[in-house]
Amino acid sequence: MQAPINPSISVDIVVFGFDGTRLKVLLIERQKLNEKATTEYKLPGSMISEKEDLDTSAHNTLQNLTGLKNIYLEQLYVFSNPNRISSDEDKQWIEHTYGISTNRIVTVSYFSLVKINLSILKTTIQGMAFWCDVQELKHVSFDHKEIILKGLERLKSRMQTTPVAFELLPKKFTIKQLQNLYEAILGIDIDNRNFRKKILKYPYLIQLNEREAKVSHKPAIFYQFDIHAYRQEQRKLKKLKIF
Amino acid sequence: MQAPINPSISVDIVVFGFDGTRLKVLLIERQKLNEKATTEYKLPGSMISEKEDLDTSAHNTLQNLTGLKNIYLEQLYVFSNPNRISSDEDKQWIEHTYGISTNRIVTVSYFSLVKINLSILKTTIQGMAFWCDVQELKHVSFDHKEIILKGLERLKSRMQTTPVAFELLPKKFTIKQLQNLYEAILGIDIDNRNFRKKILKYPYLIQLNEREAKVSHKPAIFYQFDIHAYRQEQRKLKKLKIF
Repeated sequence: MQAPINPSISVDIVVFGFDGTRLKVLLIERQKLNEKATTEYKLPGSMISEKEDLDTSAHNTLQNLTGLKNIYLEQLYVFSNPNRISSDEDKQWIEHTYGISTNRIVTVSYFSLVKINLSILKTTIQGMAFWCDVQELKHVSFDHKEIILKGLERLKSRMQTTPVAFELLPKKFTIKQLQNLYEAILGIDIDNRNFRKKILKYPYLIQLNEREAKVSHKPAIFYQFDIHAYRQEQRKLKKLKIF
Repeated sequence: MQAPINPSISVDIVVFGFDGTRLKVLLIERQKLNEKATTEYKLPGSMISEKEDLDTSAHNTLQNLTGLKNIYLEQLYVFSNPNRISSDEDKQWIEHTYGISTNRIVTVSYFSLVKINLSILKTTIQGMAFWCDVQELKHVSFDHKEIILKGLERLKSRMQTTPVAFELLPKKFTIKQLQNLYEAILGIDIDNRNFRKKILKYPYLIQLNEREAKVSHKPAIFYQFDIHAYRQEQRKLKKLKIF
């Protein structure tokens, strides 16, 4: 942990990942203050240090606490309720961890998406972080559940306006995986046929000459997202995009 | 100004308005420290007080400094460069205004849109604030020009995805006014015929049985935006909106 710190501002980072079936968020274990305490989890976060801007602070914090580096981060929302640090346990933990006694911390949350592949898994396991199912957020400290839900809200709205899904999927994916992702994030069941019909109209979805291997069901065809074709179409549309 | 204050976090509010021809931003005069100093302008802003969250702080600050109240505000971006308060004048002004000596303030900017009508004009004039043309930002203090440009960026992207234009226009408007607004915000010239053709296809743009009065040119027809028709169409589209 870098010193000196600013006792009133922190960063907390919401990293979402997708493992093919379930939407996950990256958490770390909060150090217990005594043996009897329940194990709690938190978002990777820290107080900002004096010489760093928030973006740098968020990147460094994420790397220090989870091993993840050089990933795209964007500001999500600032949480500033004057009572957001109110329980004795939370205050004690802050005093123990940062050596400061504070009544109020304003936190700037950041948002990120990663593909959970083997390399990322290895990094985060070594970094002592773990991927928690977004549907099973238990024992999450502070107001971090609220922060995760804010991130989920942004992810939902982003999914419906931009091709952000392909940042979460592997490079080659099946239509079923894409549908699973939409279902997991939007929290709805989608009709298989309608989904296929809709999605296969997209000219920037490229069918590959390759199928799943070693699966118990009929092997599905792989697809790839053509970002260049997508951008080209966007440029055409943008010439005069009103709303 | 409410005390006590938090010496490291402030709010700054970017309020955009449109007067029918030009895009404006609401500024206040920065109190001069001596008679010889150049007059400088700044965004309405202040340190946050201990008992308020940021939203409350932003609303109270805007009302105290400009008279505007109960308007929709949303978080824009957090500016946190460790050197954003670097000039001696800036430091002296902060010391004089807030009675604190600080090397670093992180500011959370807010974003808002209003219709500049007579009532708003009266309020802001009484509040000692003024509407500055976005194309003519001179003598703006601190990094407030950068904050305004960030707001403009959000406004541009919002204009191309949502019917935000109608929050800036009077209730009844002409197609020319709508076009002026798009030109002012996007910073481009738009072909009159193409614009009319495109915009008149929108089913939620209602032609009124009323024309401009007392104008030197041929009086143009007024239109109104039908927010209900728009929302209905959006709901239909959203049933399964992918991207």
